[in-house]
Amino acid sequence: MIIVLKPNTSKEEVDHIMKKIESLGLKAHFSKGETTSIIGVIGDESKLSEQPIDAISGVEKVMPVLKPYKMASREFKASRTVITVGDKKIGGAAFTVIAGPCSVENEEGMIRIAKELKARGAHFLRGGAFKPRTSPYAFQGLGRRGLEILAEARKVTGLGICTEVMDVRDVELVASFADIVQIGARNTQNFNLLKEVGSAKKPILLKRGFAVTIEEFLMSAEYILANGNPDVILCERGIRTFETATRNTLDINAVPVMKDLSHLPVFTDPSHATGKRKYVAATAYASMAAGADGVMIEAHTDPESALTDGAQTVNCEEFSEIMATLSRIAPAVGRTLS
Amino acid sequence: MIIVLKPNTSKEEVDHIMKKIESLGLKAHFSKGETTSIIGVIGDESKLSEQPIDAISGVEKVMPVLKPYKMASREFKASRTVITVGDKKIGGAAFTVIAGPCSVENEEGMIRIAKELKARGAHFLRGGAFKPRTSPYAFQGLGRRGLEILAEARKVTGLGICTEVMDVRDVELVASFADIVQIGARNTQNFNLLKEVGSAKKPILLKRGFAVTIEEFLMSAEYILANGNPDVILCERGIRTFETATRNTLDINAVPVMKDLSHLPVFTDPSHATGKRKYVAATAYASMAAGADGVMIEAHTDPESALTDGAQTVNCEEFSEIMATLSRIAPAVGRTLS
Amino acid sequence: MIIVLKPNTSKEEVDHIMKKIESLGLKAHFSKGETTSIIGVIGDESKLSEQPIDAISGVEKVMPVLKPYKMASREFKASRTVITVGDKKIGGAAFTVIAGPCSVENEEGMIRIAKELKARGAHFLRGGAFKPRTSPYAFQGLGRRGLEILAEARKVTGLGICTEVMDVRDVELVASFADIVQIGARNTQNFNLLKEVGSAKKPILLKRGFAVTIEEFLMSAEYILANGNPDVILCERGIRTFETATRNTLDINAVPVMKDLSHLPVFTDPSHATGKRKYVAATAYASMAAGADGVMIEAHTDPESALTDGAQTVNCEEFSEIMATLSRIAPAVGRTLS
Amino acid sequence: MIIVLKPNTSKEEVDHIMKKIESLGLKAHFSKGETTSIIGVIGDESKLSEQPIDAISGVEKVMPVLKPYKMASREFKASRTVITVGDKKIGGAAFTVIAGPCSVENEEGMIRIAKELKARGAHFLRGGAFKPRTSPYAFQGLGRRGLEILAEARKVTGLGICTEVMDVRDVELVASFADIVQIGARNTQNFNLLKEVGSAKKPILLKRGFAVTIEEFLMSAEYILANGNPDVILCERGIRTFETATRNTLDINAVPVMKDLSHLPVFTDPSHATGKRKYVAATAYASMAAGADGVMIEAHTDPESALTDGAQTVNCEEFSEIMATLSRIAPAVGRTLS
Repeated sequence: MIIVLKPNTSKEEVDHIMKKIESLGLKAHFSKGETTSIIGVIGDESKLSEQPIDAISGVEKVMPVLKPYKMASREFKASRTVITVGDKKIGGAAFTVIAGPCSVENEEGMIRIAKELKARGAHFLRGGAFKPRTSPYAFQGLGRRGLEILAEARKVTGLGICTEVMDVRDVELVASFADIVQIGARNTQNFNLLKEVGSAKKPILLKRGFAVTIEEFLMSAEYILANGNPDVILCERGIRTFETATRNTLDINAVPVMKDLSHLPVFTDPSHATGKRKYVAATAYASMAAGADGVMIEAHTDPESALTDGAQTVNCEEFSEIMATLSRIAPAVGRTLS
Repeated sequence: MIIVLKPNTSKEEVDHIMKKIESLGLKAHFSKGETTSIIGVIGDESKLSEQPIDAISGVEKVMPVLKPYKMASREFKASRTVITVGDKKIGGAAFTVIAGPCSVENEEGMIRIAKELKARGAHFLRGGAFKPRTSPYAFQGLGRRGLEILAEARKVTGLGICTEVMDVRDVELVASFADIVQIGARNTQNFNLLKEVGSAKKPILLKRGFAVTIEEFLMSAEYILANGNPDVILCERGIRTFETATRNTLDINAVPVMKDLSHLPVFTDPSHATGKRKYVAATAYASMAAGADGVMIEAHTDPESALTDGAQTVNCEEFSEIMATLSRIAPAVGRTLS
Repeated sequence: MIIVLKPNTSKEEVDHIMKKIESLGLKAHFSKGETTSIIGVIGDESKLSEQPIDAISGVEKVMPVLKPYKMASREFKASRTVITVGDKKIGGAAFTVIAGPCSVENEEGMIRIAKELKARGAHFLRGGAFKPRTSPYAFQGLGRRGLEILAEARKVTGLGICTEVMDVRDVELVASFADIVQIGARNTQNFNLLKEVGSAKKPILLKRGFAVTIEEFLMSAEYILANGNPDVILCERGIRTFETATRNTLDINAVPVMKDLSHLPVFTDPSHATGKRKYVAATAYASMAAGADGVMIEAHTDPESALTDGAQTVNCEEFSEIMATLSRIAPAVGRTLS
Repeated sequence: MIIVLKPNTSKEEVDHIMKKIESLGLKAHFSKGETTSIIGVIGDESKLSEQPIDAISGVEKVMPVLKPYKMASREFKASRTVITVGDKKIGGAAFTVIAGPCSVENEEGMIRIAKELKARGAHFLRGGAFKPRTSPYAFQGLGRRGLEILAEARKVTGLGICTEVMDVRDVELVASFADIVQIGARNTQNFNLLKEVGSAKKPILLKRGFAVTIEEFLMSAEYILANGNPDVILCERGIRTFETATRNTLDINAVPVMKDLSHLPVFTDPSHATGKRKYVAATAYASMAAGADGVMIEAHTDPESALTDGAQTVNCEEFSEIMATLSRIAPAVGRTLS
């Protein structure tokens, strides 16, 4: 940590700061500059992160040097994390496609969709049983019945299922049904929920909140890792910006950045990131080309009749086209789309 | 709702859309324009809001006409909501100051702070017992013990207390201690928590998430209102923008906008909105001048030693100065600072 | 244009608005809703866009239905624009790579770089002679001498040159040297400069300002088109968001969106969009996969010694690797990288 | 400047960086940390700001310690700048109100407006003769004739005039008519225009670009100061954020921040910052309370008929109300509204 001092900081102020640092068992190194002096702090920076150093008289600003996350970082683990789910690998050379409707609607429809997507090459089936909705008057999902329907679709097709948990009280229930448990974008910083899924025995697909920085996102992953669950998939799903032509802005930069900073697999969600069906394919291709380990795509046999998110849901023909193009791009970037 | 059609939409496509609308019990009115045609929908728009109209062939875009919230709107309630908490009124001509440390740290310190702030004119005491922290390694609050300390501080000073609940499982506990229950900015769209506090018997201070639009914020208030709790205070606490000179950007526009759109009282939180102690006073004054019904300010007898948020916490002298200036501005804008 | 009325708008107010619209030669259609009434306007919407309809008593809000740009739109021109520059085509099946240093530094270095990039497959050479710099104390470019050096590099290598103009007074000069004239991101809404290059006889590479919406960006292109220059290349170069891990956020969504809305070729600039050398390759691949018609990449024989933007500049080996991977992706997305 | 090294940086890499720094006449200080080592650089940091240190092998990141602006900083000038324009002072205890229509429309109307605003207490008259418009098809202003009309209005009322210059070729012309020359938000980083007004003999009201950070904004002021013009007024006019309820978001934090960092007077523009007439008053009051030295308000005798920006323009009655309330707030915050 570097403490930058104000131009006219007195000797007493400097001494006070130095003592404060040393009282925490850290070493302080004062360095006088031509116009600005600094104090360098050597030792475990986390001891200082809790301290309001910038509230002390004489301090201009404080600049942390270290990354605040540990277990999520590349430095913590030399090899990239590969997660095994049933007979599938997530990460490594594999490129994984999770597809399915926004919400589980009914058993017959879900099974029809699951069969179609399986036939067209999807690796996992998504579908929401618990739905976070902006409006209290909107459809909130089928709950437990939705989970049962997903399990039935898995039995029929063999596709592993990925579904969201919203409430700390439902973690055990959802984890007992799901192959991959999803944390939605509005819960990226629901720290109690992160702790709770930290003790679940299923991999977690953690969506990035729409206004959460990459550093904060990795801190959220850290909550899960630190609570005992090593299998976290980071999923970029679009951030909120000034642009209104699309529902969100896919932060494609985040793909190489997170692969650089962390050993965890990185996915994207082109459906939420664009909000429009016609832009899903292009951004899915971009995600693979940028180095993502997989994508999550909203797909439905009849998007027009979908109960939720129909506007960003592709139909079966579009999904086939996406799979075909991904198959062609894959070898160009060293990927296999099993 | 207005449905804008693509330039070359066929008659069949138009008919299909019209039928879809009429099948929902709504009236559709087709209007041919010179270059663009539209379909106007008359009736209860909420029936359509769930439908993926924009996924239908021939549709260029869909523009909702109505506001999605009802009970939070000015139209729903002619008079402004005034909330009574003990012998205090929130809203109306009253301007309310909630002050206190970020976290409850220990009993002795908390009581010392409470006495000082009471003497300097604070109306309510804040203090976090459950703390949402970006890092899993950071101080997470004293929990139930923190609530007991707050209750003790109330007994000593008579100040009502405002404290945060983060977990659906703690709502009953927190509501049994608090005079005002706070929902933090990271939980603005934690819909299950909103439902849960909807049945609490205490007023809710709902913080705006740092990337939540005003419309979405009012929808979050709607969750609480629709679940039975009429006493919601809207609190603007800074939004996330590209600017890095301050921790967040206080959306001062939101004060007159929310007073225009809703009947609920509107507060701001200058401490989180700036993140820097030296800018708290100016933004508190701005909030009162813009029409806010109150402010929440982080204050401590010794900010330098605060366990959390010290950098944005004012000391007692600064708090006195803030109260004095607010007292002078109040009559100029028709307020009383009892 | 749709005019949404306030709930209790009086008949007099409605009549006043209707008359205002009809006085402009437009037709107004009043439609009474259950809770909200609207007025639909039929005719040339641009006549109304100048009118402060939302300032009129009784008006809740105004929603434009039509796109404000004409010549830049897909509706205006059925086929996609392909621009011929010397023996090269920009747009169509071709994928174009413009590469070179941020600034022209000296003749010897520029020619060395040009030869290296030509050998590795670049199609055009970039280099700034006039540099927009945040600091008045920073290197501002070699000016006319820089243009002469670029011309020399073109003579030696045969590469067409792309260079920026910042000042209305320099348009003629820059256009006399350049094969493609660049408008930088800080000048996307410098309307006088746009008008001036509208009469230049060279293609314009128009960079998107870092906080300019896609609609506004297309309006800026419209300025150039409406002033007589049909050859505009739209270049997405990263937008400003809350994320600080990268210099900007590449808006990859903008690629399919702009190809959908406009007939003009779409490029990206992965160097400015990321600001970091190590992320340039991944985002260049993503751009091609998303459907871009080309990329502009900062490349230098010795990035460490570059006078400007060295941190985001790739070296020759990295550039070779980028070209090789782009060549492999190209056929998967129907592109040729001649 | 602090250079943070990657964890496994070799001794050769460190030596290479140290030599690079010393070759620039600076001192480098290596400091070994437990997990991360840093190099502190002592001396004139601006020598390094041009160097791509972060492109050098072994460097994790570079953190500048000093502010990049000099003449605009509080350190440069101990007293606050007060600008004299005719018999008015801008800055100091004075609070200044500049008011008038968005555009100059015609002589009769302009003089009528000027008289009304003068009578109601405005200190300066605004009005655009050259208008930056998003659309090439929109009204672009009356040009020179607009300036003549403004001069006439000044003759009649005695109000000094403030008007915008957009083009380097018009600086001399506009400065010959105006009392205060405005640089608009789209030209905040039009560096050639900034240089040009640096040699004008009139005070400059510099608007903050809607996506320009405070630090960059002060660098733009620095361009004007460094080119010889000491009279710069900083004007916050709303930044672009994700919020769509208002046209922009008034960055009220920027008022105390800029007064803290710079000696220059700070204004706000509540009209552009909100984009809606009904929110102008509240944000004007907030600006005064936050410490602004003045506001610029769009006002018109008949906003409904204004050629531009009518939706955010107040009428005479609203303007009177604003002036009355500002007069009441002024003494509470140590201001006079002469």
